[in-house]
Amino acid sequence: MSGGGPPTLEVLVERLGQLPGIGRRSAERLAFWLLRASSDEALGLAEAIRAVKEDLVSCRICGHLGESDLCSICTDERRDAGLILVVEEIKDLVRFEAAGLHRGVYHVLGGAMDPLSGVGPEHLGIDGLIRRCRDPKNNLRAEPVREVVLGLNPTLDGDTTALHLAAQMEPFGVQVTRLARGLPSGGTLEQASVSVLADAMDERRPLGGGTA
Amino acid sequence: MSGGGPPTLEVLVERLGQLPGIGRRSAERLAFWLLRASSDEALGLAEAIRAVKEDLVSCRICGHLGESDLCSICTDERRDAGLILVVEEIKDLVRFEAAGLHRGVYHVLGGAMDPLSGVGPEHLGIDGLIRRCRDPKNNLRAEPVREVVLGLNPTLDGDTTALHLAAQMEPFGVQVTRLARGLPSGGTLEQASVSVLADAMDERRPLGGGTA
Repeated sequence: MSGGGPPTLEVLVERLGQLPGIGRRSAERLAFWLLRASSDEALGLAEAIRAVKEDLVSCRICGHLGESDLCSICTDERRDAGLILVVEEIKDLVRFEAAGLHRGVYHVLGGAMDPLSGVGPEHLGIDGLIRRCRDPKNNLRAEPVREVVLGLNPTLDGDTTALHLAAQMEPFGVQVTRLARGLPSGGTLEQASVSVLADAMDERRPLGGGTA
Repeated sequence: MSGGGPPTLEVLVERLGQLPGIGRRSAERLAFWLLRASSDEALGLAEAIRAVKEDLVSCRICGHLGESDLCSICTDERRDAGLILVVEEIKDLVRFEAAGLHRGVYHVLGGAMDPLSGVGPEHLGIDGLIRRCRDPKNNLRAEPVREVVLGLNPTLDGDTTALHLAAQMEPFGVQVTRLARGLPSGGTLEQASVSVLADAMDERRPLGGGTA
């Protein structure tokens, strides 16, 4: 494009080019596709973007997003409100939900502590988590929190945050666990980095008699 | 995602996944980016999509798109209205404009003839082109058309269309040319297909004494 198209189209190409992983050529390709697409398809996308920015609100308990100030997970009575999985970002929550691996509820921190960049605990949703653990009245259906699973990224920032959270939880008699580390299932030893191998050695488990 | 996110977000992922070359994982990545983007960035994209679908109109002379019913190229008095470059699609026009290779005007057909799929000359903007060539009154600034350059794709459909157009133009005494074919500059003989080599042989040119 670069000056070849009408300004309205140029603006769209520029906007599309701001998306992550979309270069100039891809942005042009998408813009021409939208130009030729049915109005339903193109305007439906525009409306979906608007709705995500304007209709979604943060859940006042867990920080997830939903159509009201209590998200669909927190309002689901079948979920175990005494078991909280703490994640950095909503996308991590969504990944766990898609995998169907967690029957409890969540707490979204909105990131991880990063002291070098000046991101301290006060910038994250840690206070809300502590309130839920300290007093059942602050938790869903006034249920006491039995266990907090730290589902943070296995990175320096994630570990820093996990240690901080574990220290904060200590007075409340809540069991704090973190996700296991080791070899990624389906990978090979050859591909594993030294730190993955070290985790796998550190957290090795007995291979029991009858459970082969 | 697959059921993990709030419905509003799911809709956006589905809409993004309809874009060409955007798979499910990319659509999720883009949706989360839009979720975290500033309102200006995200709503600006939504608005740009809407504007392209609702504010752009076809130029009544050449079929290009613009903000009014005469496009910015047709209304540019510095362009040579006697020299028309015929292209299949607007994106081809935009490519020529970006390259700055054409000082005349355009005619956009909206595709190429494809007899096997039932796309005949009546489905393309051929009548408008003939009107412009037949009578200067139908052309920009009532200027007679001296030359029509056929800038169609070097494909079976493009060639079919080119032959049809050349036959239609014959009565009007307009010079009809087509783009040259041969080896793509920067490529190698090794990569060239048989038909490219055949074109390159057929259209070989004398390498003149003084012009080296």
